[in-house]
Amino acid sequence: MTTWATAFAPASVGNVGVGFDVLGHALGGVGDRATVRRTSSGRVAIRAIRGVVTELPSQAEKNTAGRALLSLLERVPRGTGFDLELEKGVALGSGMGGSAASAVAALVAANATLDAALPDEALYECALDGEAVASGSRHGDNVAPILLGGLVIAPARGAPVRVPVPDELWCALVHPHHVLETRRARAALAGHYELHAFVEQSEHLALVLAGCFTGDFALIRRGLSDVLIEPRRAPLVPGFTAVKAAALAAGALGASISGAGPSVFAWCQGRATAERATRAMQSAFRAAGLDADVHVSPVDAPGARVETCGS
Amino acid sequence: MTTWATAFAPASVGNVGVGFDVLGHALGGVGDRATVRRTSSGRVAIRAIRGVVTELPSQAEKNTAGRALLSLLERVPRGTGFDLELEKGVALGSGMGGSAASAVAALVAANATLDAALPDEALYECALDGEAVASGSRHGDNVAPILLGGLVIAPARGAPVRVPVPDELWCALVHPHHVLETRRARAALAGHYELHAFVEQSEHLALVLAGCFTGDFALIRRGLSDVLIEPRRAPLVPGFTAVKAAALAAGALGASISGAGPSVFAWCQGRATAERATRAMQSAFRAAGLDADVHVSPVDAPGARVETCGS
Repeated sequence: MTTWATAFAPASVGNVGVGFDVLGHALGGVGDRATVRRTSSGRVAIRAIRGVVTELPSQAEKNTAGRALLSLLERVPRGTGFDLELEKGVALGSGMGGSAASAVAALVAANATLDAALPDEALYECALDGEAVASGSRHGDNVAPILLGGLVIAPARGAPVRVPVPDELWCALVHPHHVLETRRARAALAGHYELHAFVEQSEHLALVLAGCFTGDFALIRRGLSDVLIEPRRAPLVPGFTAVKAAALAAGALGASISGAGPSVFAWCQGRATAERATRAMQSAFRAAGLDADVHVSPVDAPGARVETCGS
Repeated sequence: MTTWATAFAPASVGNVGVGFDVLGHALGGVGDRATVRRTSSGRVAIRAIRGVVTELPSQAEKNTAGRALLSLLERVPRGTGFDLELEKGVALGSGMGGSAASAVAALVAANATLDAALPDEALYECALDGEAVASGSRHGDNVAPILLGGLVIAPARGAPVRVPVPDELWCALVHPHHVLETRRARAALAGHYELHAFVEQSEHLALVLAGCFTGDFALIRRGLSDVLIEPRRAPLVPGFTAVKAAALAAGALGASISGAGPSVFAWCQGRATAERATRAMQSAFRAAGLDADVHVSPVDAPGARVETCGS
């Protein structure tokens, strides 16, 4: 009988430019790890937080992973409890879905300790509750792809929907050393919007989805341009205009802000182009006075998974 | 050598609820017919307008079909001219893409008389110019599906993109005898919009597209709900709330306003459900004091085509 499990959950690119709060994809090679031990305490206890971020709340209800596990407790036999250890690999305030990775890693690990595991849809609901603690908004564009892998449509209600993508679709992501809190990035979006901007954004979303479903890179290139959110958030990311221009000059299909920023992502046809784009974007951030880490991943990166478990 | 041609262009459902100005599909069984004779006048002359609408402008530059042909003249050898006869089958102000059907029928007929026919993409550009005369807006959600058939993403620039749909996807459309001018319907959309409504509408658009690309009726049902435009236009359509409710009660996947209204469309799985939905919607319009015509068509209805030609 399994009583503990360790799960890994990847980082992610939320919004993907044209799908604010709706579209996201997993980013391989970097992520959070959670070890969960099932107890009979009826409670969630956070025992340790290690890694690139340690100053997180250790009260379960204020911690995204803790809050997600509390939601899970409502769906399992009374008396069940969880002890949680988190190993953060994704920096907070990076726009790489760090809070969502913690929540999903904890849920997937906890789920593996249950006698009757819950389906992904239930874990998704719990993860949304956790995400709301981090950002004040119950959006699934990070938790859904982290849970399922690949590119995902993340509805506010009901099961998320995977979108197939061409094998050769790669993501280049550059994370500048500049903290941008999700709440501040969301505040930049306050106010009203014009219908014409939404029509153009809808067109772009439709073209990107059509390109993904049919494996047509030309359609992805036509659509991958955020005219709704990016203009409001770009001033919060030092050097953004030059970084985006560098990605496009390196051959990217399109580039925009990852999640709430400040990371910038670019979609590329082929790994070589993605690697060229990361170097160009990193140089552009350096020119703006910021060091930056780089990540290259297929858009169809694997979702969260149990790594080890025991009794 | 062909010097004249007659083309038929079907009606269409613009917006499809979740894709304002971006998404549309052809509606079979009803449409406009245009006969075009190539001349050497260097001009466009409208010789006759017959059918369900006759009080249209006969000056080429003020008529949607005439304006579309004027745009075509800019793309063909100097000295070419067109004489046009229109037979209107689609009522104006019905929300069934009547002006677009005239423009596309005229373009397809005229194109058949050219020694070097132009590609669909060029005809699309010309049809957008015609549509701007009718509605004051250069949107392609009617002209693109009328030209290509089926369900189409209609970008403001570049070639439209066909979206495959399941064979069993049918449209039930009910046209109440109540004229709603496109310009008045567009005026109802003035003012600002909230981001959360955009997000919900984007999610719905993404679910509908995913459902069409994968043939998943459950996804189409989850997505086919217009939360952005319909609330502003519904008051312009007498009985709308009851008509939509009747369609859903009859088993429709979703229902909303067709184009700028007042026609209401419902998407259904299977022809029998579509026929049941039209009867229910027609009854609901009658209860609101309006007679209504009904149309049932596969969503994947054929686009415009040349019927006869000669020299």
